[in-house]
Amino acid sequence: MYIFTEQELRQHISLNHEALSVVEDGFSSLAEKKAVMPPIMRVDVHDHNGEVDVKTAYIKGKDKFAIKVSSGFFNNYQLGLPSGSGLMMLVSATTGVPEALLLDNGYLTDVRTAAAGAIASKYMAKEDIHTVSVIGCGSQARYQVKALQLVRNFKRVIVYGRSPDRVAAYVKEMTEELGVEVQAAESAKEAVIQSDLVITTTPASEPVIKAEWLHPGLHITAMGSDAEHKQEIEADVLAKADVLVCDTVAQCERLGELHHALSQGVISETRSITEIGELTSRKVAGRQNDEQITVCDLTGTGVQDTAIALFAFQEMVNRGLGLKIENKKPALKN
Amino acid sequence: MYIFTEQELRQHISLNHEALSVVEDGFSSLAEKKAVMPPIMRVDVHDHNGEVDVKTAYIKGKDKFAIKVSSGFFNNYQLGLPSGSGLMMLVSATTGVPEALLLDNGYLTDVRTAAAGAIASKYMAKEDIHTVSVIGCGSQARYQVKALQLVRNFKRVIVYGRSPDRVAAYVKEMTEELGVEVQAAESAKEAVIQSDLVITTTPASEPVIKAEWLHPGLHITAMGSDAEHKQEIEADVLAKADVLVCDTVAQCERLGELHHALSQGVISETRSITEIGELTSRKVAGRQNDEQITVCDLTGTGVQDTAIALFAFQEMVNRGLGLKIENKKPALKN
Repeated sequence: MYIFTEQELRQHISLNHEALSVVEDGFSSLAEKKAVMPPIMRVDVHDHNGEVDVKTAYIKGKDKFAIKVSSGFFNNYQLGLPSGSGLMMLVSATTGVPEALLLDNGYLTDVRTAAAGAIASKYMAKEDIHTVSVIGCGSQARYQVKALQLVRNFKRVIVYGRSPDRVAAYVKEMTEELGVEVQAAESAKEAVIQSDLVITTTPASEPVIKAEWLHPGLHITAMGSDAEHKQEIEADVLAKADVLVCDTVAQCERLGELHHALSQGVISETRSITEIGELTSRKVAGRQNDEQITVCDLTGTGVQDTAIALFAFQEMVNRGLGLKIENKKPALKN
Repeated sequence: MYIFTEQELRQHISLNHEALSVVEDGFSSLAEKKAVMPPIMRVDVHDHNGEVDVKTAYIKGKDKFAIKVSSGFFNNYQLGLPSGSGLMMLVSATTGVPEALLLDNGYLTDVRTAAAGAIASKYMAKEDIHTVSVIGCGSQARYQVKALQLVRNFKRVIVYGRSPDRVAAYVKEMTEELGVEVQAAESAKEAVIQSDLVITTTPASEPVIKAEWLHPGLHITAMGSDAEHKQEIEADVLAKADVLVCDTVAQCERLGELHHALSQGVISETRSITEIGELTSRKVAGRQNDEQITVCDLTGTGVQDTAIALFAFQEMVNRGLGLKIENKKPALKN
């Protein structure tokens, strides 16, 4: 049993082209029906304003698969702790024996989530973009824009958030990090109308993005909603999209923006919706011209977790890292 | 983050009255609506004849809860490995941070499963019993009977299994271990008709126990079925039971003996079925006289896992055991 700590993982696993590529392959395995991915398991801990999710997917042909435990406890700030934490484990796909624990406290989730956003933009955004907006200013607001640099060149980032201090910190930090102009917007509207590409990264439960702000050529990736009550974009945004993509339709119907669009009846159950794996496996084209409005709804999937955990495991083992604990089950007696 | 190995856990955590008592309290929390227990998550790995289950339950008022990963890979014997393995983790119920990993390879599952069987017998079997039958001769066939000694005195054990070698090994080992007479039966029928109490511990997909063998005063605990296709006892056994108990009705309807009784229409959806937590919390009586036929259907629940993991954690920490890994998440930046 290998054990890797957050510190080691942060040091050696980066949000790079390889990470993007393994997540892309993970999505393709879904479209090619090569993945076994049960619905997310969720434990609500209302007493402490928390929830724990478990995600997993077995990708056929891979020798291990991940089971990920991720938690969000929204009173943690009172203790000076981040709301998110968790770990991934890798289980042998041939024997069922747990083989590695990646004590990443959510770092690998940040990487694979940002990778998914970049993959959406790779297939759905215009080739030439100038301005990118990001709504929210937490860690995904950072990772998503960094990941986007792997697939698109852009000149300017506009950030909108509710806390002026956190927005100012974002502008300062990301101007350096990205090497492009980063500006604060006074409103979400101001950000969206100036942008070729918008990424929403909030835990909002009321829409932040209005359909009336849409304009030709815009791409939106909404990655914040992963629960029934969350919603970042008006349902009409989905109705007006020329191309609508979900990570998985089944999951977005329950937990994503799609959920609200269906329940409000603004799009019909029979409307054609593409899954991101159909883009990565080249079964379906994404954007077809520079005028289309495209929207991608991401809720986070087990295949991303298995893909990034396998990648991280291999990178760490190749470097001879990790703590090895002998915990071999004694050989069969009966 | 504490890490405990199988070896340490086997050395210090026993199937004793305390273990029984914490599992009993776990069941009571279900009946008292103090537990949040989502449905089991299952990943099927058909390529390797395997499956991985994830179980969990948050019990209100407890400072941690368990998430358990347990696997069954049924080709493992070809590699000289047992089919089952897995681990439990404990997550803080106040912050969501993973706090301990119990690398038990299924040992604690064996303990809590046997505890559940003993609890069923405590409330449902006659006070005075002489002969106990066990069907199957794997590890649960051993643990169940050992656990039963905590709640009932009995003079004789009859074991029935398909492999003469494994039956012989069972008889030899358990005669010593239990300090009572242990005999092999030629057939399941021979075993059942002579017994006051029967425990079925097989992965059978065809019933092993027939309704025509039932006799007044008999108690049966069926603990083998935990998947749709598994069935150890004829559906009519449930129909003929004077008292029918499930660990949880919802889970037994999907995965237990109850599933087959309902789908074959031999018992109706409106029949009164007691949950084991109603017995332990004294909301409902179990057996009312020595003539009743009683049946308990166990599929295995997350509250048992949380109960046994919390118990084991406390025992280990009290003894100053376990490996401690520093993996504190850095304090909140944004």
